[in-house]
Amino acid sequence: MGTYELYYWPSIQGRGEFVRLALEEGGAKYVDVARTAGGMEAMMRWLRGDGQSAALHPFAPPFLKDGKRVIAQTAAILSYLGPRLGLVPKAEASQFEALAIQLTIADLVAEVHDTHHPIAGSQYYEDQKPAAKQRAASFTAERIPKFLGWLEQRLERDGGPYLFGRRVSYVDLSVFQILRGLSYAFPNAMKPIGARVPHLLELADRVAARPRLARYLASDRRLPFNEQGIFRHYPELDARAARAKKAPKRGRRRA
Amino acid sequence: MGTYELYYWPSIQGRGEFVRLALEEGGAKYVDVARTAGGMEAMMRWLRGDGQSAALHPFAPPFLKDGKRVIAQTAAILSYLGPRLGLVPKAEASQFEALAIQLTIADLVAEVHDTHHPIAGSQYYEDQKPAAKQRAASFTAERIPKFLGWLEQRLERDGGPYLFGRRVSYVDLSVFQILRGLSYAFPNAMKPIGARVPHLLELADRVAARPRLARYLASDRRLPFNEQGIFRHYPELDARAARAKKAPKRGRRRA
Repeated sequence: MGTYELYYWPSIQGRGEFVRLALEEGGAKYVDVARTAGGMEAMMRWLRGDGQSAALHPFAPPFLKDGKRVIAQTAAILSYLGPRLGLVPKAEASQFEALAIQLTIADLVAEVHDTHHPIAGSQYYEDQKPAAKQRAASFTAERIPKFLGWLEQRLERDGGPYLFGRRVSYVDLSVFQILRGLSYAFPNAMKPIGARVPHLLELADRVAARPRLARYLASDRRLPFNEQGIFRHYPELDARAARAKKAPKRGRRRA
Repeated sequence: MGTYELYYWPSIQGRGEFVRLALEEGGAKYVDVARTAGGMEAMMRWLRGDGQSAALHPFAPPFLKDGKRVIAQTAAILSYLGPRLGLVPKAEASQFEALAIQLTIADLVAEVHDTHHPIAGSQYYEDQKPAAKQRAASFTAERIPKFLGWLEQRLERDGGPYLFGRRVSYVDLSVFQILRGLSYAFPNAMKPIGARVPHLLELADRVAARPRLARYLASDRRLPFNEQGIFRHYPELDARAARAKKAPKRGRRRA
């Protein structure tokens, strides 16, 4: 087995983290290229398509190099790595189901990004704060419960301990990541939501306790969450949801 | 070969259209379930997961039923159908490349949706119009050129006539769809952008002229674009971009 090359922004977890978790849990040999000397320039050359064939010109990080192959898009990378690292069942139907769940997680991640950048990724957060507050309010009140509720239902009905039964899959690692990220970004909003998805929280703890993952999370290869990444903690985007959560409680007393 | 069942909202093209185009071009037997009598109720039962195993409970339409299998998420459905309908090369590397391009198109489609719903999908467009104008302005000025420029480069370097050479793929059908959709939603903004992606425009015409596609597009199975779908024509979201386009022209005279 060769050495995989992961290309992703070197100072954030971002979308690259979903791939890092799979590589770590799968025990793969890999280089996190942009975090090595000269690696950032190498990544930018790929993104410009300098001297590369068109087929190997990714739209955006993360992308994975496996020998001569270049795979782009987080969910596609995970779908590629899954069977190779034993992180997805062998049945074709399960692999497509894993991909579909991963794509639903990708939709959630894109919505998380848009809570702080509802107008334009090219503009500062500070310049789109009013819209960000509105978007974050609807995201925390409506979307997080919908996404996590669906995953909880999926896990509950199938019995666990993981989404595909007894063996951990790349989708479980991604569930761990979104739960940690959402709790970092929206601690107030997540308190009441977390109480409604107990099996998911257990799943995340189960993932974090796996020997390889535990070693990774304790290492300096695991970057901390920060306000340049996708999951950002801006108290003003979280507080509103916390207030909104109190209202239904008072409402319920009337019933 | 059995009959595929496609489940999608019955009155819009939306994300389901990418699947419809593949089924039509691939000559597949399929039922557009929600457009048949009682089909909408059947779809809603699937979405609620009534009496289904957890594995078969999709998060959202579109989803495809193939015998006992249920595949959700547009790009996953196309990745599943591609080899079965001869709409993607057989090499594994090409299939992952097709998936990555399709996922990039999916990102574009999500951003199109957010031009009219930057705050919340659950609220009326009319209630988020100021933010929509801002988002549409950055989308048309920055994002459409970036996405389409990347696709144009990909097509140009590889020589065409289609993205994977001489045989049409599901990705080509999707390129056709986004070009038609963007031209419908943003006719002013698309005029100068279109001039910079001539090979993509030719590709779209080539797709539209394929016998099966031409018959489909002329049939009443092809729904018209409308303001309940993803690609919506709101002149106020397009006009701003048209003005922005004029500014660089004046700027260039100074150089």
